[in-house]
Amino acid sequence: MTMFNKLLSDYRQMIDGALEECLPDEPGNTLVEAMRYTLFSDGKRVRPLLCLAFCRACAADEKNALAFACAVEMVHTYSLIHDDLPCMDDDAFRRGKPACHIRYGEAQALLAGDALLTLAFETAARPGRLPPEANIQAVATLARCAGYKAMVGGQSLEFAAGGSVHGELMDEIDRLKTGRLIEAACVMGCIAAGAESRQIDAASLYAENVGLVFQIVDDLLDGDGGRDKNKAKARAAYLTEKAKQALDVFEDASLPAAFADSLLTRSV
Amino acid sequence: MTMFNKLLSDYRQMIDGALEECLPDEPGNTLVEAMRYTLFSDGKRVRPLLCLAFCRACAADEKNALAFACAVEMVHTYSLIHDDLPCMDDDAFRRGKPACHIRYGEAQALLAGDALLTLAFETAARPGRLPPEANIQAVATLARCAGYKAMVGGQSLEFAAGGSVHGELMDEIDRLKTGRLIEAACVMGCIAAGAESRQIDAASLYAENVGLVFQIVDDLLDGDGGRDKNKAKARAAYLTEKAKQALDVFEDASLPAAFADSLLTRSV
Repeated sequence: MTMFNKLLSDYRQMIDGALEECLPDEPGNTLVEAMRYTLFSDGKRVRPLLCLAFCRACAADEKNALAFACAVEMVHTYSLIHDDLPCMDDDAFRRGKPACHIRYGEAQALLAGDALLTLAFETAARPGRLPPEANIQAVATLARCAGYKAMVGGQSLEFAAGGSVHGELMDEIDRLKTGRLIEAACVMGCIAAGAESRQIDAASLYAENVGLVFQIVDDLLDGDGGRDKNKAKARAAYLTEKAKQALDVFEDASLPAAFADSLLTRSV
Repeated sequence: MTMFNKLLSDYRQMIDGALEECLPDEPGNTLVEAMRYTLFSDGKRVRPLLCLAFCRACAADEKNALAFACAVEMVHTYSLIHDDLPCMDDDAFRRGKPACHIRYGEAQALLAGDALLTLAFETAARPGRLPPEANIQAVATLARCAGYKAMVGGQSLEFAAGGSVHGELMDEIDRLKTGRLIEAACVMGCIAAGAESRQIDAASLYAENVGLVFQIVDDLLDGDGGRDKNKAKARAAYLTEKAKQALDVFEDASLPAAFADSLLTRSV
């Protein structure tokens, strides 16, 4: 196991432990069961890992960013639950298991999504090691990146476009739907470290490029024929370089850099 | 027009103006249209009015509470949109108009609800006249009162119980589903005024009782036969007195007191 993989594995454990504390099991409570079902369903934890990685890149203790990392993963999870509903993508399976609404019914899945989104903001606002200004900045960042001008706006555009999405509109949807929440993750990591604004700007630029790479690789892994395969691979490599070039304002950017490479070469 | 009604009318104008600023029209943007469709659909604005009234009762300028008042109305509106969806109550009409999902389709209605919930937290976190501690306290209060242990928890319980709800379970559902968001409104008004904790506690107690009255009167106006009508009226009057008794810790509680009376005697 490389040092990078060992660190990711340690971070994943920290994140899972913190999520467990945010939403402990309540046997017999259907809503909590439905929330936990998708939150603990073997996700890659890309967004919370990026959040911790950027906190570390700003030379701060990554534990400072743990609550923000949990918040961004909750927002991601809620978006998956709502995306899978019959009125949206109508997906019966998610991560090899029945989707939340198949397991718990549509109403409880809808509510589980709503509750996770709400818990995300409660978690980001929770007083901890940081000054209250940092919590407020994190809540505002998360809300802006998840809101109608960003993530939800992208979901709405994608649904309105139906199946026939490609070219610039597809890039715009990817940027809004995937890129902006990745931006929230990276920027919240910087906020947790009390970063300077040029570091926050750099994290945004990194996130924009990495978000596009993430989506391109997703499409390639899905065997999506909408794009020329070799052209798509070359573009992903180019965007990864651009992402890494944004990192020179950080104390030690080895972790976000390795992360960008790993997202480019991932096979799942 | 009584002074109380004149004040409510002024407050409503302030609230509608502030909501308009939070979510300006974007012609051609379906998601924004769907959000605005329900947000500006002639609601009574009970929760934001209570928020301003409690700020005033703590002897502060009610404008301090305007962003929080908008936030709580957005949460209320999102809950209505999701409640009306086919997988929940399946209501085709809301406030005399087609429900949001009838007008814009289920997917856009789902996303409009998600986006309003997100915008609520963005609005509550927006830096304004208050110290950041107040924003954080407001975000935390709103999230707690709207979350899985409160409002969404009540919706989940109600759905799980099906049609056969009465007695203590019905009170518990009303308390969670309606009372807790009213609590958020009253408490956030106090937070905006920099209130003492005994005033916040009193606002919570007031809200708990007023929330039950609100639901009892709703059921009576709906002609709901689940409760003995005279018994229900007597209980509503008793709870209104209890709510008003909680108010003696405020500088000038005439407004929340008149509000409690008006909720008891309302006919719409």
